[in-house]
Amino acid sequence: MEMPTMQTTPSTQIVNIGGYDIGGSNFTVMAGPCSIESYEQFMETAKGVKASGAHILRGGIWKMRTSSKDFQGLGKNSFDFIKAVCKETNMKLVSEVTDARQIEEVYDIVECFQVGSRNMHNYALLKELGMQRKPVLLKRGFAALITEWIKAAEYVTVGGNPNVILCERGIRTFETSTRNTLDLNAVAFAKKNSHLPVIVDPSHAVGIRALVPDLAYAAAAVGADGIIVEVHPRPAEALSDGMQALTLDDFKNMMMKLDKILTAIDRPLHKVAPHAN
Amino acid sequence: MEMPTMQTTPSTQIVNIGGYDIGGSNFTVMAGPCSIESYEQFMETAKGVKASGAHILRGGIWKMRTSSKDFQGLGKNSFDFIKAVCKETNMKLVSEVTDARQIEEVYDIVECFQVGSRNMHNYALLKELGMQRKPVLLKRGFAALITEWIKAAEYVTVGGNPNVILCERGIRTFETSTRNTLDLNAVAFAKKNSHLPVIVDPSHAVGIRALVPDLAYAAAAVGADGIIVEVHPRPAEALSDGMQALTLDDFKNMMMKLDKILTAIDRPLHKVAPHAN
Amino acid sequence: MEMPTMQTTPSTQIVNIGGYDIGGSNFTVMAGPCSIESYEQFMETAKGVKASGAHILRGGIWKMRTSSKDFQGLGKNSFDFIKAVCKETNMKLVSEVTDARQIEEVYDIVECFQVGSRNMHNYALLKELGMQRKPVLLKRGFAALITEWIKAAEYVTVGGNPNVILCERGIRTFETSTRNTLDLNAVAFAKKNSHLPVIVDPSHAVGIRALVPDLAYAAAAVGADGIIVEVHPRPAEALSDGMQALTLDDFKNMMMKLDKILTAIDRPLHKVAPHAN
Amino acid sequence: MEMPTMQTTPSTQIVNIGGYDIGGSNFTVMAGPCSIESYEQFMETAKGVKASGAHILRGGIWKMRTSSKDFQGLGKNSFDFIKAVCKETNMKLVSEVTDARQIEEVYDIVECFQVGSRNMHNYALLKELGMQRKPVLLKRGFAALITEWIKAAEYVTVGGNPNVILCERGIRTFETSTRNTLDLNAVAFAKKNSHLPVIVDPSHAVGIRALVPDLAYAAAAVGADGIIVEVHPRPAEALSDGMQALTLDDFKNMMMKLDKILTAIDRPLHKVAPHAN
Repeated sequence: MEMPTMQTTPSTQIVNIGGYDIGGSNFTVMAGPCSIESYEQFMETAKGVKASGAHILRGGIWKMRTSSKDFQGLGKNSFDFIKAVCKETNMKLVSEVTDARQIEEVYDIVECFQVGSRNMHNYALLKELGMQRKPVLLKRGFAALITEWIKAAEYVTVGGNPNVILCERGIRTFETSTRNTLDLNAVAFAKKNSHLPVIVDPSHAVGIRALVPDLAYAAAAVGADGIIVEVHPRPAEALSDGMQALTLDDFKNMMMKLDKILTAIDRPLHKVAPHAN
Repeated sequence: MEMPTMQTTPSTQIVNIGGYDIGGSNFTVMAGPCSIESYEQFMETAKGVKASGAHILRGGIWKMRTSSKDFQGLGKNSFDFIKAVCKETNMKLVSEVTDARQIEEVYDIVECFQVGSRNMHNYALLKELGMQRKPVLLKRGFAALITEWIKAAEYVTVGGNPNVILCERGIRTFETSTRNTLDLNAVAFAKKNSHLPVIVDPSHAVGIRALVPDLAYAAAAVGADGIIVEVHPRPAEALSDGMQALTLDDFKNMMMKLDKILTAIDRPLHKVAPHAN
Repeated sequence: MEMPTMQTTPSTQIVNIGGYDIGGSNFTVMAGPCSIESYEQFMETAKGVKASGAHILRGGIWKMRTSSKDFQGLGKNSFDFIKAVCKETNMKLVSEVTDARQIEEVYDIVECFQVGSRNMHNYALLKELGMQRKPVLLKRGFAALITEWIKAAEYVTVGGNPNVILCERGIRTFETSTRNTLDLNAVAFAKKNSHLPVIVDPSHAVGIRALVPDLAYAAAAVGADGIIVEVHPRPAEALSDGMQALTLDDFKNMMMKLDKILTAIDRPLHKVAPHAN
Repeated sequence: MEMPTMQTTPSTQIVNIGGYDIGGSNFTVMAGPCSIESYEQFMETAKGVKASGAHILRGGIWKMRTSSKDFQGLGKNSFDFIKAVCKETNMKLVSEVTDARQIEEVYDIVECFQVGSRNMHNYALLKELGMQRKPVLLKRGFAALITEWIKAAEYVTVGGNPNVILCERGIRTFETSTRNTLDLNAVAFAKKNSHLPVIVDPSHAVGIRALVPDLAYAAAAVGADGIIVEVHPRPAEALSDGMQALTLDDFKNMMMKLDKILTAIDRPLHKVAPHAN
């Protein structure tokens, strides 16, 4: 087993998205649907999560699917209404790009480019993102070593873009009762062995709605800098990942308990910026 | 993937050890050395952890070691002084039995029989423990499915002993930077799908002293009923698992932050029983 | 990654069971049902596999089951007819013991004690077997490192019993289409880094009848010293593991192709000893 | 566990590369260096492996490396001499593309596009390859389910390119003594549940030179349609993966034993096409 080099005082890179510092003294919550499915669904979700304290929107424009026959996302058809939702709620969007050619296409509507778990090793994509001026949310590959994850981030940072956020989203293990195995050891380890902010995606990590809040609390307690959570107004109608999406009520309840834990450990939630209008 | 049956209100079996209810409204802390090495080491640890709020002692009498050439524990030589330490500190001991024939030998000094990770599938041992009147702490096998772990507990309960505590202690995955991968998904899942109390062993789960407290906080936040932690007055001199043992000071600091989190979520630490004398 | 020490000429310990040398220049085949279910089933299987070239019988007397409610084996009720079948076919039996107290009970009818995958870390059992005069078949734990498996064998050999056969039977991984993942890397590695014979159990390793023969051929080609295979006259009626049992016809066909491969690599099957009568 | 649908007679898609049918009645061997390092190294390797019976050349033009600081391949500087080597030896090249933009660049020198393990889920790349007229060698993701691997191939075939070869190259498990865990269960399973040819890469699968040939024999015996093997004239000097590269002598010896096994199972090696001049 490798002996980790422990830094006693990690000098965290602060990454700013829409006025919220990630990796500093406050905790950040990103929330939204797995896939952006329609103007109505996205607006309802955005307003709902903002009302409960979320800071940043998440939502998939193109989806990576195991089968080429599954719903692949709305793509360009959603660009105009995404802009409208972000403006109306005064929230910035983090969204996945799966190919270097998509970066330019969505540059105006995405404030933080997400690299999904299946693309963590897509070094061509990482190098391209290293040349951008917007932050990158780098999900851990579902079978990537912590050290590989940290090194993948360097493909972005050595290219000139220092604004990378690491995101633990569960790893693939022998366990099958849950969708993945959330690895909070990795969060604690990365916080001490990388200078980058580290957040947690409890939704993909466990894959069962009723358990998502518990894992979010654990993420806050272990020292993560934030979470990214799937929320859908009517999960049963979701076109992807409905089983793990919180309802707006679930999300509201989760935020209240999260607030208590974060207050207790002096890592309060950011204050929410007002609506644009 | 199996669809879990969610119980909205799990009816938890309460397990009592030395006056402390495990699985009820309070949080329980078990602490002590990996191996019981001497009277002095064990007494110093016991007094130290009690002073910081620990409720129950842990300590290995016989150790399971991968190599037949490694230190295998003091065995019978330690029985007399173990009794003295337990009496002096008014604490009960949880300790591992690795063979059915050991149960009788340690019946007077052990209040809760631990079944180690490597013995979770040792059904002969589990059946024997099903006939005892003392509680059993059942560690999850390091490659056991959650469902196998819950079924292993039934080998004890169907034998007539309802007092089983499940203990998550990390699973074996591809990750090598940490000793094991702590699976808090499993804790959240087991809390909803079993009627038994569930505690967490962050020491074996991560294997790195500096990270143990962070995982303990996560365990508290996710909803575990307690933790079992390795503590040693001088970890560098420990005969086994020194890398992951907390010092008495580490433990004290951990307990203070743990107390804050637990208070915030209305799951306070048990009040500590006074010394015997 | 650890750098293995390669021995250019492994000095193999030869283990003799019923006149067949395991680990020498010939290949050994052990076959029989998962559970011994009745005199008729066991006799029919024994005669069938012998007619196709099997050397040693396998069959479970007590079964380790995940659930305490599943069929646990015939136990003592089968002792008399097992003796009769072994005598009639002039074959020796390898069978699992799951508890030290069983060793004496079956000493007269079992020629080689199997330690199952779930007991590889049961050091109390291994030490007891180190004091016996009969060979031990040590299955690899389903999540045991190769190095742990080799060290587990030392618990037997340092006790004074040099006759240990290592058996690879598949490890637990993220893959779910097959029961386990057969690790033939481990067979090649153990052949070069241990002095003990190494055999393969393709039945548990893949868990799908139609694929068992292919994996048996691979085991022969990779350099294993033998295989242990589940066979049942009517797999659909088997009380355990029916999905992976070969029919007598499957077994016969497998043996013919196995013979061709083994002949090609100068590692022929042992000649079969005549019936007792 | 999912119940596999077994096809009794898999109708294999035959993929032709340079006159060699892959997936038919003969066995195909692809060999060459991990990275193409120089004209001399590549020519020496090509002539050497051809003399011992290899059919198709392999060699990396761009390398995917965990660290952005490691050797990333010669890239365009090698194009001219690669052409010369292929012409001189009358062999076709299989080589990895890591980004859709590379396909056009190497179209003239690469006869079969390899998709590496880390790109198996790179659906943008797969879709692009679905529009090409040259075959695709699709390595299994090191943590991909067999079913995901087969579905990834559909991203290519539904795009209009039926010529996909599946390649098992080892999966990531808890085992650390070998580089990966070769999953021959997956080969047997994929041969029965997919219509595509399946080959094996024993070099990456085990990562230890001395064990590569044994795993190649196992691959032949289990029913694979071919192998792809790393060979280097002087492995100690290799710029990448030297530990697992066979010498030209190792390769020659391996081919002789492989020939015996394949002859025994009526799956002979293709006859080698003559040199171009």
